[in-house]
Amino acid sequence: MSTDTNADETESASNCGASTTETEETSSKCGASSESSSDSESASSSKCGASSSSSSGSSSDSSSSGSSSKCGASSNSSSKQEKTDEKVGSTVEDFEGDPGQLIAVGLGPGHPEGMTERAKTALLEAEHIVGYTTYIDLIPDEITEEADELYDTPMCGEVSRTEEAIDRTLAGNDVAIVGSGDPNVYALAGLALEIIESKGATASMLNFEVVPGVPAAQSCGARLGAPLVNDTVSVSLSDHLVPMPEIESRLHSVASESFTITIYNPWSRKRRENFQKCCEILLTHRDSDTPVGIVHGAGREDEQVMITELGELEELGESEIIDMTTTIVVGNEETYVWDDRMVTPRGYETKYDY
Amino acid sequence: MSTDTNADETESASNCGASTTETEETSSKCGASSESSSDSESASSSKCGASSSSSSGSSSDSSSSGSSSKCGASSNSSSKQEKTDEKVGSTVEDFEGDPGQLIAVGLGPGHPEGMTERAKTALLEAEHIVGYTTYIDLIPDEITEEADELYDTPMCGEVSRTEEAIDRTLAGNDVAIVGSGDPNVYALAGLALEIIESKGATASMLNFEVVPGVPAAQSCGARLGAPLVNDTVSVSLSDHLVPMPEIESRLHSVASESFTITIYNPWSRKRRENFQKCCEILLTHRDSDTPVGIVHGAGREDEQVMITELGELEELGESEIIDMTTTIVVGNEETYVWDDRMVTPRGYETKYDY
Repeated sequence: MSTDTNADETESASNCGASTTETEETSSKCGASSESSSDSESASSSKCGASSSSSSGSSSDSSSSGSSSKCGASSNSSSKQEKTDEKVGSTVEDFEGDPGQLIAVGLGPGHPEGMTERAKTALLEAEHIVGYTTYIDLIPDEITEEADELYDTPMCGEVSRTEEAIDRTLAGNDVAIVGSGDPNVYALAGLALEIIESKGATASMLNFEVVPGVPAAQSCGARLGAPLVNDTVSVSLSDHLVPMPEIESRLHSVASESFTITIYNPWSRKRRENFQKCCEILLTHRDSDTPVGIVHGAGREDEQVMITELGELEELGESEIIDMTTTIVVGNEETYVWDDRMVTPRGYETKYDY
Repeated sequence: MSTDTNADETESASNCGASTTETEETSSKCGASSESSSDSESASSSKCGASSSSSSGSSSDSSSSGSSSKCGASSNSSSKQEKTDEKVGSTVEDFEGDPGQLIAVGLGPGHPEGMTERAKTALLEAEHIVGYTTYIDLIPDEITEEADELYDTPMCGEVSRTEEAIDRTLAGNDVAIVGSGDPNVYALAGLALEIIESKGATASMLNFEVVPGVPAAQSCGARLGAPLVNDTVSVSLSDHLVPMPEIESRLHSVASESFTITIYNPWSRKRRENFQKCCEILLTHRDSDTPVGIVHGAGREDEQVMITELGELEELGESEIIDMTTTIVVGNEETYVWDDRMVTPRGYETKYDY
């Protein structure tokens, strides 16, 4: 059994099992992984080790409440592997017969009412639904009960989970692979296409489709008022897949222009420095009283909303409201706070009297 | 009756009546406006002059098919007003009794299946539904039939329409004001808050809420594959409310970094130069073979999708696929085209074998 000391193996301990935005795909290196969240602020985590439940009923009960437990794969103290043990195995040659359809479905903010009708229909029509346990648990029972199979892996293994979805499709099943938010926002649409290609299959052969969902930026923007009504940018502070100097350079470039900035994956115990660096960069370009909106777990039971100022942001990194499930919206120089809402003017006041 | 020659009065002729993204709020200066789309590529437009239809049935039949007609407000050839005639009139003092609730609802891409359940519920619970005619027409009849009143203004007057929604709320009605996409994306959430404030009311008093929707960037990203899975930016080329030098500066700053870039409001007859300038700026930072996705009328009957290269983009400005209803996604240096899809790698290939 693994322990905290192995948390270094994972990209982001607090992302594990508690990813409630589109952050999931930035997590892990599981397969050679470790205790997930005992050292993180976030409440929920779960078992690593896929559960595949046939038909009726929701996904694995043991983890469906989204709290506690372990990343089941064996503890491994080897440091800094360049590549993980996750490899794509089978190729298109290993399957006979006609493939089914693969659909990447965005669930939106995380409550059933935030899903689109099209997402619901896609899930109802799918024979197999594949996803991270936390996301599968977001799907209403009346939908999951219609599926022949649910396949969920709790905190890690987005590569192997996506491969599993593709293999099931190649084997002739209609499969939906799900994530919160939108499949194009730091999420699985790209990984699915990359793995399909690596298997010698094509997207057309699987009739691959993406069903968009409401991204975290929009869910959070709505909770905050109207912070995002002009040009805007999304930056993830996870340096798991993008080097930190590149992230810093991007932050400099957009903070010096009038973009509102949505920050995904802002903080984890392993990446305090990224968050500190981000705050520092923003403060070199924007006033310390620039309004900043913080939304934790948008649309979930543990939702928390705070509007603060840029100068206060860094120290909030150590508070419960900021973790990997949090989305942060940094206003531009015109953004103001009124009646507990953030408002970024569109510029109408320059053209109209009101 | 107005003519083409007055198109100069409006910010964007082709946006008028054919806005199928979140572009609506960038249009017009109506009240002193003009023929909308006879000089534009886009098929649909409509009458300016609000129609308010009581209960049952969809909005004004004459414009519900989304084609033809005039901006009814009187022709006015005065040039370059600094401010328009649209002024907010009544204030909170003019109303007695308890106000109702105001909700800004994002309809998503434009087909009923793209709406969230929460958006549907909000519309069903609203007594009055207010919006641009084209958007009201996107709402299924079974929803609009439940409303006591529909108030739609066809192509212009987002300020007066929003004020109307607020006045109706102050008068005690529960009102939904609608737009396509998301209310935070170049859209009405901010304007609503600004006008509420100008009336001496507060957002809390109206229990103001924003119901998020799937933005055009996500709808288009889904149609294109997976172009947006890393850090991304949205830029509108409309210089109605933002000066062009500022837009140019933003484009330079983000094109020199690895953002994928979603371009809203890319082209109108009046703003050919903005589009040309944009293409020029992008080409100073990115290779001419950078993949570019173009989606016209995402999710609508007139949807068109094209994947091309940055070097080809400028001349496509003169073709039908690019107008104010089009969203353009410009890849970063790693984006590639495979099997008719755009893929921006997340970076997994640097960590995983597949």
